Amino acid sequence: MAAPDEGIGHEELALAARNHGIPLEALRHDVTPPGLHYILLHYDIPTVDADAAAAWTLPVHGRVRTPLTLDLAALRALPSVTHRVTMECAGNGRARLSPRPVSQPWLTEAVGTADWTGVPLRTLLAEAGVEPDAVEVVFTGADHGVERGVEQDYARSLTVADATAADPEVLVAYEMNGAPLPPQHGYPVRLVVPGWYGMASVKWLADITVTDTPFTGFQQAVAYRYRQTPDEPGEPITRIAPRALMAPPGFPDFMSRTRVVRPGPVELEGRAWSGRAPVVRVEVSTDDGATWRDAELGPAPADGDAWSWRRWRTSWDAVPGRHVLTVRATDAEGTTQPLTQPWNRGGFANNEVQRITVACA
Amino acid sequence: MAAPDEGIGHEELALAARNHGIPLEALRHDVTPPGLHYILLHYDIPTVDADAAAAWTLPVHGRVRTPLTLDLAALRALPSVTHRVTMECAGNGRARLSPRPVSQPWLTEAVGTADWTGVPLRTLLAEAGVEPDAVEVVFTGADHGVERGVEQDYARSLTVADATAADPEVLVAYEMNGAPLPPQHGYPVRLVVPGWYGMASVKWLADITVTDTPFTGFQQAVAYRYRQTPDEPGEPITRIAPRALMAPPGFPDFMSRTRVVRPGPVELEGRAWSGRAPVVRVEVSTDDGATWRDAELGPAPADGDAWSWRRWRTSWDAVPGRHVLTVRATDAEGTTQPLTQPWNRGGFANNEVQRITVACA
Repeated sequence: MAAPDEGIGHEELALAARNHGIPLEALRHDVTPPGLHYILLHYDIPTVDADAAAAWTLPVHGRVRTPLTLDLAALRALPSVTHRVTMECAGNGRARLSPRPVSQPWLTEAVGTADWTGVPLRTLLAEAGVEPDAVEVVFTGADHGVERGVEQDYARSLTVADATAADPEVLVAYEMNGAPLPPQHGYPVRLVVPGWYGMASVKWLADITVTDTPFTGFQQAVAYRYRQTPDEPGEPITRIAPRALMAPPGFPDFMSRTRVVRPGPVELEGRAWSGRAPVVRVEVSTDDGATWRDAELGPAPADGDAWSWRRWRTSWDAVPGRHVLTVRATDAEGTTQPLTQPWNRGGFANNEVQRITVACA
Repeated sequence: MAAPDEGIGHEELALAARNHGIPLEALRHDVTPPGLHYILLHYDIPTVDADAAAAWTLPVHGRVRTPLTLDLAALRALPSVTHRVTMECAGNGRARLSPRPVSQPWLTEAVGTADWTGVPLRTLLAEAGVEPDAVEVVFTGADHGVERGVEQDYARSLTVADATAADPEVLVAYEMNGAPLPPQHGYPVRLVVPGWYGMASVKWLADITVTDTPFTGFQQAVAYRYRQTPDEPGEPITRIAPRALMAPPGFPDFMSRTRVVRPGPVELEGRAWSGRAPVVRVEVSTDDGATWRDAELGPAPADGDAWSWRRWRTSWDAVPGRHVLTVRATDAEGTTQPLTQPWNRGGFANNEVQRITVACA
């Protein structure tokens, strides 16, 4: 945990230089252009060339009747589906917390939307035949490193129920936006778990093991838990809390990122999403949350793309002076983004509203 | 300028979250994969869809006999060339300086290599016919913002001699790695100035004006100058100083990025470049610069790709303990990277050697 008023240190900066968020103006695109989708890399990007991809195999084994081993050709030969999915890092917003958990120092931009193509995980599990005593499915990536003294391959699990659900439908994906996965997004094959924070979507997928006991690996039992104190077991991080972001209007000051707009009508637009239920309302404030108005919602996501963001827009009549713009989303479960953030030790699932300072002149 | 021991602030962090360097393990690729090449955005990425790209035109005017206006089809109809170019941000290394200039806080990773395809600028200038009294060519981008109180379109100039040279040959580029430019790299058209720091390669190119007076715009006369005091005019930043980087061996600790390797032979590899002259020597130290050995250089860049990086490798017999690895490049002008950095107010052209901490166990 950082001390009060402690600035970002070199270690956090080294993470910020590797990982990156979406430049907020790219919220104007339905699908995030290549290279602008957020990335969070725990360890190194595995170096996988075309030869290594051709030799790649994925075992599906453990508590199954018929263990499978698929190569890329076998996976591509199976019926595929494409889902448009909005993915967000569980640590988004962490750097604004006080005290600040020391880790990847996200502000508000760790999000992106892509079209992912692959084979439904439930297809593979049905083919393998999950044994009745199975409880979880463990996914292991090829990325390897050390975290708080624990050497590990990155690994996460889902319950059998979540792994085989029709909605959200988990994918074993080999294409992003109609092209092979970029190295940083899991080439040649990754998991995509719609509606969940990104930690569930294991990249560089190397192994699927069905187990008869709950998985207790580091990323499941130690990291990615809601905790107030270091000793409690904590609750697991799962689905994405509702959030709206605005593409900042006007143009920026290079250093402060304060926006400049001219007096008169200004179009405000952005995206809103929730991994728990559809977004049903987006409200905009141009006076730092004192008053709110409803934004106009764009079309609801198409069938199969339910866990992708939704466009919103409104118009603002800007008058000279400084203004703080903010926006908040509400989902069909009735959850609205908070104006201040409940704190947890990991800095997870922080969906405090975005605030944009605008100078109108 | 940051105070002594002042951590990175929220404004610097907001830049670090937008812009990103190359994940150092990607130094293993000859050409940097899409999305991993560094980006430095002064203002917003202009939103240019296919319709806007089709309507885009580039005037070439000012002190020329025949002003031109090219659209994308006209540009693509001209004979094109492809150059492999290593580009580096002039601010690379800034965050390690003391006192630290407050701006985009790069550590060592603001670099990337791409194949750029386009029309040589000298072809366009020959067609337009540069008048005898012309001294500079000014390039203006579509990106707009405010910097230290000055509202501006991003703009830079080259002398007529630099703009029309056969080597380095400046390109008006419309493809990166065989595909249309990604939005963040200048779609639909940008300048590429091989050998120069990235600030010269104006993105989202909107105008080329030949002038009979030196350009005094903000990015030329105020920013991107070597200065020791705020009041001196300073010298312009131009070509890239020599630098070598190593792909960190072994695997990382998530937070500290300390590397872990096993005892025994460890392959060390990376890339080296200079925008001033070919790289002729790369030396590696495994004891924080106390002793050095020569690395083996890969093939020199092909003709036409002279301003791209060169691979290097060596083997290291790792023994248990902590080690600091470092590497330094020397170019044909006889310039070797320094072990400590001469300071300047902008934090420019910092080519102090990279240091990688390794725990061998």
